[in-house]
Amino acid sequence: MEESPRRPTVGRGPKVRAAVRAATVAELAEKGYADLTVEGVARRAGVHKTTVYRRWKDRQGLVVDALAERVAEEVPIPDTGSVQGDLEVLARSLADTLGGPTGRVIAAVLGTDAGRLPEVAETRRRVLGDRLRRAEPVVLRAVARGELPEGTAPHEVVKAFAAPLYFRLLVSGEPVDRAAADRAARIALAAARAGELRSG
Amino acid sequence: MEESPRRPTVGRGPKVRAAVRAATVAELAEKGYADLTVEGVARRAGVHKTTVYRRWKDRQGLVVDALAERVAEEVPIPDTGSVQGDLEVLARSLADTLGGPTGRVIAAVLGTDAGRLPEVAETRRRVLGDRLRRAEPVVLRAVARGELPEGTAPHEVVKAFAAPLYFRLLVSGEPVDRAAADRAARIALAAARAGELRSG
Repeated sequence: MEESPRRPTVGRGPKVRAAVRAATVAELAEKGYADLTVEGVARRAGVHKTTVYRRWKDRQGLVVDALAERVAEEVPIPDTGSVQGDLEVLARSLADTLGGPTGRVIAAVLGTDAGRLPEVAETRRRVLGDRLRRAEPVVLRAVARGELPEGTAPHEVVKAFAAPLYFRLLVSGEPVDRAAADRAARIALAAARAGELRSG
Repeated sequence: MEESPRRPTVGRGPKVRAAVRAATVAELAEKGYADLTVEGVARRAGVHKTTVYRRWKDRQGLVVDALAERVAEEVPIPDTGSVQGDLEVLARSLADTLGGPTGRVIAAVLGTDAGRLPEVAETRRRVLGDRLRRAEPVVLRAVARGELPEGTAPHEVVKAFAAPLYFRLLVSGEPVDRAAADRAARIALAAARAGELRSG
């Protein structure tokens, strides 16, 4: 095979990974998951195909990793002044992700054999862990303001509003929209206020 | 090919379907999903392979249909005297299903391409519809007793306790056990009491 006429423009390490991840998301948005190829991603990122394969096992691993990074990036730490407002922002941010092309790909990957690979499980944990880290100040502030009972566990709150949204995406097929996000936030809030989201 | 030496012992119509579904569940329990074959199911049910293919498109369609039937059968209509007790029974019944071999197969099928076929979507709706039908008297009795606000929607209550259990099965990978069921029931109850599970 001939050397690609387009000379790789990115260096080694983190820069390459960032470029490849960005190219993966761009290819996904443009072509969808079914038509995404490692070749296409490499071309768009300006690297050789072998560079991609050196860092990611396969197409699915690449997509899951790129999305995990993106999902993590999209989540702000809200500070609206009330726990209800903060939870709505967090739930809407998750709904925006799951309701869009990212969500379709997550749904497509989660249930396949690839979804049970250790690397993917790790990525999934990372996504949840990242949301948890961002929700933590929200819950701690709410407890300090007396809006939620002492001992409310941030990770239980995250799961309480995430579960109804993933349920729509993966099980019922109902739309994952703003209304769904607000209802999910209110369910989590009601459960937290009732003391049902303490750890353990 | 020669005629099978074991003569089919079941007749046509509903009896055949019931026998094939029962054989499918038995094969699943014995061999797991990966090693299940239509031939094996037909042999166990005492029918010809073509009889199975006449009624079910393929292996995955057969498995989904057999499980849907089973999931529907397993759900009792509880009447413990309190809405908390009733919801715990319903949530534990779902957790027993999702936490066992049935759940592993549901997880394996849901995310694959087969999970997006119209027949599978229909089956999924049927499973949820059936649970809803059984939860309806529970919620209506609770409203009549004054335990839940007027207008509480049975299908929203079902989704509120089902979502955390499916989330464990499909996303976080945490065990789907009795403790998870009781927590899911309490989340649904807190949300319902707060008036967050009314229809619309």
